[in-house]
Amino acid sequence: MKIILSFVVVLLCIGTLKAENGYELWLRKHPAKAVNVTTSKQSAVLDMAKKELTEGWQGKAGSTIKLIVKADKDIKGDGFKINEGVIQANNELGILYGAFELLRRVQTGETTDNVVSNPSYQRRVLNQWDNLNGSMEHGFGGNSLFWHKGKDSLTVTDAERNRWRDYARANASIGINGSVIDNVNASPMVLSTPYLGKVKEIAASMRPYGVRIYLAVNFASPIKVGGLKTADPLDPGVIKWWQDKAKEIYALIPDFGGFLVKANSEGQPGPQDYKRTHVDGANMMADALKPYGGIVMWRAFVYSTTDADRAKQAYQEFVPLDGKFRDNVIIQVKNGPVDFQPREPFSPLFGAMKKTSVMPEFQITQEYLGHAIHLVFLSSMWEECLKSDTYQEGEGSTVGKVTDGSIYPQKYTAIAGVANVGLDSSWCGHPFAAANWYAFGRLAWNNTLTSDQIAKEWLVQTFSPRETNETLLTATTAWNSGFLLPVKKMMLQSREAAVNYMMPLGLHHMFSAYEHYGPGPWYAPPRVRVDWTPPYYHKADAKGLGFDRTKTGSDAISQYKEPLQSVFADVNKTPEIYLLWFHHLPWDYKMKSGRSLWEELCYKYQDGLTTVRDFQKIWDNAKPYVDSQRFADVQTRLMRQTRDAQIWKDGVLQYFQTFNNLPFPPDMERPMTTLKYIEATPPLNIK
Amino acid sequence: MKIILSFVVVLLCIGTLKAENGYELWLRKHPAKAVNVTTSKQSAVLDMAKKELTEGWQGKAGSTIKLIVKADKDIKGDGFKINEGVIQANNELGILYGAFELLRRVQTGETTDNVVSNPSYQRRVLNQWDNLNGSMEHGFGGNSLFWHKGKDSLTVTDAERNRWRDYARANASIGINGSVIDNVNASPMVLSTPYLGKVKEIAASMRPYGVRIYLAVNFASPIKVGGLKTADPLDPGVIKWWQDKAKEIYALIPDFGGFLVKANSEGQPGPQDYKRTHVDGANMMADALKPYGGIVMWRAFVYSTTDADRAKQAYQEFVPLDGKFRDNVIIQVKNGPVDFQPREPFSPLFGAMKKTSVMPEFQITQEYLGHAIHLVFLSSMWEECLKSDTYQEGEGSTVGKVTDGSIYPQKYTAIAGVANVGLDSSWCGHPFAAANWYAFGRLAWNNTLTSDQIAKEWLVQTFSPRETNETLLTATTAWNSGFLLPVKKMMLQSREAAVNYMMPLGLHHMFSAYEHYGPGPWYAPPRVRVDWTPPYYHKADAKGLGFDRTKTGSDAISQYKEPLQSVFADVNKTPEIYLLWFHHLPWDYKMKSGRSLWEELCYKYQDGLTTVRDFQKIWDNAKPYVDSQRFADVQTRLMRQTRDAQIWKDGVLQYFQTFNNLPFPPDMERPMTTLKYIEATPPLNIK
Repeated sequence: MKIILSFVVVLLCIGTLKAENGYELWLRKHPAKAVNVTTSKQSAVLDMAKKELTEGWQGKAGSTIKLIVKADKDIKGDGFKINEGVIQANNELGILYGAFELLRRVQTGETTDNVVSNPSYQRRVLNQWDNLNGSMEHGFGGNSLFWHKGKDSLTVTDAERNRWRDYARANASIGINGSVIDNVNASPMVLSTPYLGKVKEIAASMRPYGVRIYLAVNFASPIKVGGLKTADPLDPGVIKWWQDKAKEIYALIPDFGGFLVKANSEGQPGPQDYKRTHVDGANMMADALKPYGGIVMWRAFVYSTTDADRAKQAYQEFVPLDGKFRDNVIIQVKNGPVDFQPREPFSPLFGAMKKTSVMPEFQITQEYLGHAIHLVFLSSMWEECLKSDTYQEGEGSTVGKVTDGSIYPQKYTAIAGVANVGLDSSWCGHPFAAANWYAFGRLAWNNTLTSDQIAKEWLVQTFSPRETNETLLTATTAWNSGFLLPVKKMMLQSREAAVNYMMPLGLHHMFSAYEHYGPGPWYAPPRVRVDWTPPYYHKADAKGLGFDRTKTGSDAISQYKEPLQSVFADVNKTPEIYLLWFHHLPWDYKMKSGRSLWEELCYKYQDGLTTVRDFQKIWDNAKPYVDSQRFADVQTRLMRQTRDAQIWKDGVLQYFQTFNNLPFPPDMERPMTTLKYIEATPPLNIK
Repeated sequence: MKIILSFVVVLLCIGTLKAENGYELWLRKHPAKAVNVTTSKQSAVLDMAKKELTEGWQGKAGSTIKLIVKADKDIKGDGFKINEGVIQANNELGILYGAFELLRRVQTGETTDNVVSNPSYQRRVLNQWDNLNGSMEHGFGGNSLFWHKGKDSLTVTDAERNRWRDYARANASIGINGSVIDNVNASPMVLSTPYLGKVKEIAASMRPYGVRIYLAVNFASPIKVGGLKTADPLDPGVIKWWQDKAKEIYALIPDFGGFLVKANSEGQPGPQDYKRTHVDGANMMADALKPYGGIVMWRAFVYSTTDADRAKQAYQEFVPLDGKFRDNVIIQVKNGPVDFQPREPFSPLFGAMKKTSVMPEFQITQEYLGHAIHLVFLSSMWEECLKSDTYQEGEGSTVGKVTDGSIYPQKYTAIAGVANVGLDSSWCGHPFAAANWYAFGRLAWNNTLTSDQIAKEWLVQTFSPRETNETLLTATTAWNSGFLLPVKKMMLQSREAAVNYMMPLGLHHMFSAYEHYGPGPWYAPPRVRVDWTPPYYHKADAKGLGFDRTKTGSDAISQYKEPLQSVFADVNKTPEIYLLWFHHLPWDYKMKSGRSLWEELCYKYQDGLTTVRDFQKIWDNAKPYVDSQRFADVQTRLMRQTRDAQIWKDGVLQYFQTFNNLPFPPDMERPMTTLKYIEATPPLNIK
C-alpha cells in the first residue's frame, strides 16, 4: 500500500517536472522560505552571501541568520563556522562559503550546528584550456566562456558579464577561488595590453564571488609580445620585461592570482631553450610576481626522452631541483606519472619534493574518459589519488597530506582542476559532467571527503523536486529509493566501469590517435614519437602483455618510497588494478581469481560493458523523477556509452587476439563488430 | 580419463584439419574402403551410381553391393529399396538415389537394411533466379552458374561443364531432379535459338545425374522473340509460336521439364494484358508442352489490389479458376500468403484448389532471412509449413498431404525451392546456407522428415572428420558432444531466433526498402505502392499494433477452413506466433505469459539477440572440430548477425516507442544505437 501511495505521489509529481537544460547546475532555485539575514557590515561579497541566503532559504520559515566576520582559532584561511544560525569566518569570503554550505546542509538534511569547515588548499583553481580563438582544448562543453574570434573579440557585452558572474557563483558555491582563463598551451597574445583589458573585465565580474584570475603564459612572450630577441630567463631585458608586465597586470587587477606555465613540454618554449633550468625560469617569474603576492604554478608535465620510460621522466627532471624554487613557485603535478589515464598509480613526485610546494593537477574535462558522452564520476579517481599513501614520511603520508601542508611546510598550497566548462547551456555537455566540476571543488575544499558524500550532495541539489509543500515531501522516500540510491550507485560504479571497458588491470594510453576517445591499441604510424603510441605502453606480444617497470625493466618502481617499491616489484603483491602498469606478464599468468591473465582481461571488458548496459536500465527506471530534457539527454548519451563500451571490448580484445591467438572464455559474449572496421574507422565516426 | 583421452585425440585431429572452402558441400571425400559394385546393365546414370559407391564407400571393406533395376510394388517413381547389400529401383535414377542414400546411412550410422524410400513429390525442382546478365535476384552465393555477360556469353567452357556437373551431382545426392535455370522475372531472350543452344549444353551436363532443365519464360516472348504483335493466348499465331517453340526445345532437349511462369505479377506480362485469364495463359502453354510430357508451373504469387488486404488477393484470383487448368499445369504457391517472410501462416490456397495440381514454393535463398550473412536453418520453417493442418479434408490434411497427391489426385506433383546457389567457391555464401539447399532436397524427397534429422545428416556429412582409421574414430564421442549436439541445437534454434529479432508474434514485412535485409518498419515514401511499405502490415498506432484480419478487419481468416477460421478469429485461441498477423491489439493486451503485448514484444527481441549472441559462443567452442577457413567464415558472419540482431531490436522497438511512448521492461537491455542513425543508414552500411 505504501508503495502504491508513493507511486501515486510520484505520478502527481511528473506533471510538474518542467524541462531543465542544466544551466542552474547544483544551484537550482526552489521556492524560498522567509529568512532574516543580518550582517555586521556591508560589502560586495557579504551582499552576495546575504542574497544567496535570502533567495535560497529552505529551512524553517522566519529563521534569523547572523553573518559575523571575526577571527577564530578554529577557523583557517577562508574557512567558517556554522552554529545556531550564526555563520562566522575570518574574512568575507569565508562567510560566502559558509552561506553556501548552510544552504546545502539544509537541502541535504545534514546538521547545521557545530560545523567547522576549513579548506584543505589555499588556492583552489580551475585551469580552463581555452584558446583565444574561442575553441577549447579537450573541452566538451562548447566554446570558451571567455574568448571568441572576430573583430569584436575584445568587446565585452552584458551577456558575457552575466555568464562570467554565473560561472564565478557556481565556483564560489563549492569553494573554488581561482581560474586560469586561458590554455596552458598559451598564446603570448594574452599578455598584450588589449587582451589584458579584457582580462580586467573578466576579473571584475568574478571578484564579488572571490574568484581570482590567473593567466597561463607563454614562456616566449617577451619575444612574441615584447619584441625582445630572447626569452632567456637570466637576460636582464627579459627579467625587466616580466617585471613590467607584472606591474601592468596588477595595476589593472590588484588581486590577480599569478601565472601558470607549461614550459619545455610538448613543443612549448621554456628556459631549456636557453640552456637554463626550470628553476631559472620559474624563479624569474616568481620574482616578478612576488611584490604583488602573485604565484607561479609551474607544470611538471614534461617528458623529454631522458629515459626509455616516459613515466619516469618528470621525476628525473624535477626531483634534482627540489629546494631551489622560490616560495611562491608551486610545482603542478598531474595525478599520475603519464597523462590523465583512466587509472594510473599516483605520480612519484608527490612527497618526493620535500622542500618545494607541490600541487595536484586533476583533469575534470574527460579527455581520456569519454568526453562529454560517457557518464564517469571522476571523484572516485581523485579520491583514490588523494588517499594513496606515498609513505614518504611514514605510513599515512597520503598524496593529500603531502600537498596540503599537513606534512611539509609550504608557503602556498594549491590544487588545480582542468575545467570542463564552456558555453553550452548545460555548461559541461553531459548533465553528469557537472558532477565532476562539483566534486573537484568539494575535494579541493576538503581532500578527505568521500565520493559517496559528494555524489549524494550533488544529486540532491541537481535533481531533487523543486516543490517543498507538504504533499510532495512525502515523495521523498520514493525519491530516495527510486532515484537517489540507484543513481548514486551508478555514479560510484562509473569510473571503475570505464576503467574496465577501456583499460583494466593497469593498461594505459591505448587510445586512438589524437582525439583520445575510442580504442587504438594498434595506433603506431611511422614518424609519430613512440611514446605517443599505445604499443609503447601495452607492449603486447605473443607471450604476454604489460610494461615491465621493475628492475628487470624500466625500474620506474625505484621512484617510489619503500615499502611501495617492494610491493610494486613483486608481482604477487602488486595490486591487480596496477598489474600491467608495473609488469609484463604471460597471457596465462594466474590471477588471484584463478583465471588466466587473458581470461581476467576478457571478463573485465565484459564487466565494463555489462555495467554500462545496466546504467541504461538504472536511468530509465529513474525517469519518473527527472525532467524530460535532462532525462533524454542522459539517456541518449548512455546509449552511446554502451555502444562505445562494446567497441572498446571488441576492438581491444580482438587486437590482443592477433598476438595471443587465444579463444574467449567459453561463457562470455563474443564481439559484435570486426576489428578491421574498428581499426579503419575514426572512433567518433563509429555509430 | 576418457574425457582426457578424447581431448588428446581431438588435439591430434586439429593438425590434420585442412582448410576447406565448402565447395564439397555435404559430399566431402573420405578415404574409401574397398567395395565391389555389380550392375545388371550399363548406362550413364548407373555408371554414376557405381562411381559414387566405389569412391565414397566407408562401410566394411570388401563389401559387395548389387544394383538391380526391377519394378517392385513397394517402390514408387524414383524410389528405391536397400537391403543386405542390394539397391533396387524401378529405374536407373532410383538406383543413383539409393546409392547416395546408402553412403549417407553408412556415414551417419543408420541402418542399411530394410530401407524403402519413395519420393513425396515427382518433380523436385530448384528455381534459380539467375538473370541472363549473370546477376542473381536475391542470390547471395555469387553470380550465376549458368549465365554471364560478354560476347562469349553463349560459349561453353569445360570449366563450366564441370561446375554444372558438380551442381547436378549435389542435387542428385539429395533427390532434386529439376532446375529452372533462369529468373522467374524472365528475359524473353532465353527462348531465342542461340540461348536454347546453351540450354542444351547445360542439360547435357546434368543429364547423367537425372536433373532435368526447365525454363522460366516471359509471357510476352512471342512478341519479344517471335516478332508477333501480340502474346494473346487465344491468338492462333501465338498458340502456334509456342507450339513451334516447344518443338524446337524438345528437339534439342528431349527430357526438357517444362516452363515456369510469373504472369501478371509485379509488372510481368501475362494473359490479363489481353483480358484473358490465368487459365487461358497456362493451358495454352500446357497444350504446347503436352505432346512431349512437359509441364507448366504457373505461379500464384499475384497481388493486384482486388482487396484491401494483399494476403487475400492470390486466393481471390485463383480459387475461382479451380478445375479449369489442364492436368499438366501445376499452380506454384509460396508457403505463406504474403512473401517469404520469417514467419507466415500457410497460404490458404493449399487445399483450397481441390481439382488443380498445386505445388509449394519455398525460398532457399535468404532474401528475407539475413541473406548469406545470417545463420538461419530454414528446414524448421518448411517443416512448420508442410505439417500445418489445412483441415480441408478433415484433420490431418496437412500442406504436405494436400500437395503430394495423398489427398487429391494430381497427375503431377511437384515442389519448388528458390535456389541460393551461385558461383562462390562455397556455392551459397554462408557455409551453413548449404544446409538449406540440402534440407530443401531432403524435404522434397520426404515431406515428413524432421529438421532434427536433416540437421544431423547435414552436419555429419559436412563437418565430420575425414579420417576413418581406428584411432581417430575414437574421437567420435567427443565430436558428438563437442560439435554435433551443440551445433545442431544452434541450427534448430536459428529460425525462431531470426523471427524473434526480426519480427516476432506474427509481425511481417517490416524490412527496409528493397534489399530486404535490415529493419525498416518506418519505410513509407510517397509514390511507393502501400502494400510494399511496412506500415501497411504492422499498422502501429498510439493504441496498438497488428493487422486485423478477422471479420472486423480484412476478414482474411474466412479463406481458411474451419476450425481454423474460428481459431484465428478468436484472439485467445490464435497461436501467439501468428497473433499480430491476424489481430490488431492494444499495447497493453495481456499475453499468456502475463506480460503486456509491448513487454512480450520487447522480450522476444531480447531473446532473439541473446540467442544469436549465444550462437557465437557455441561456434567458438566448436572450433577444435572445424577447419580454420570454414570456422573463421562462420565466426565472422555470426558476429555480424549479432550486430544485426541488435540493430533490429534497437530499430524496431524504438520506432514503436514513437507511437506508444512506453518504457522498456525494467530488466531488459536498452538500445545501443539511435533510431535516428538506423533510420538514416542503409542497413547493409551499418557496421
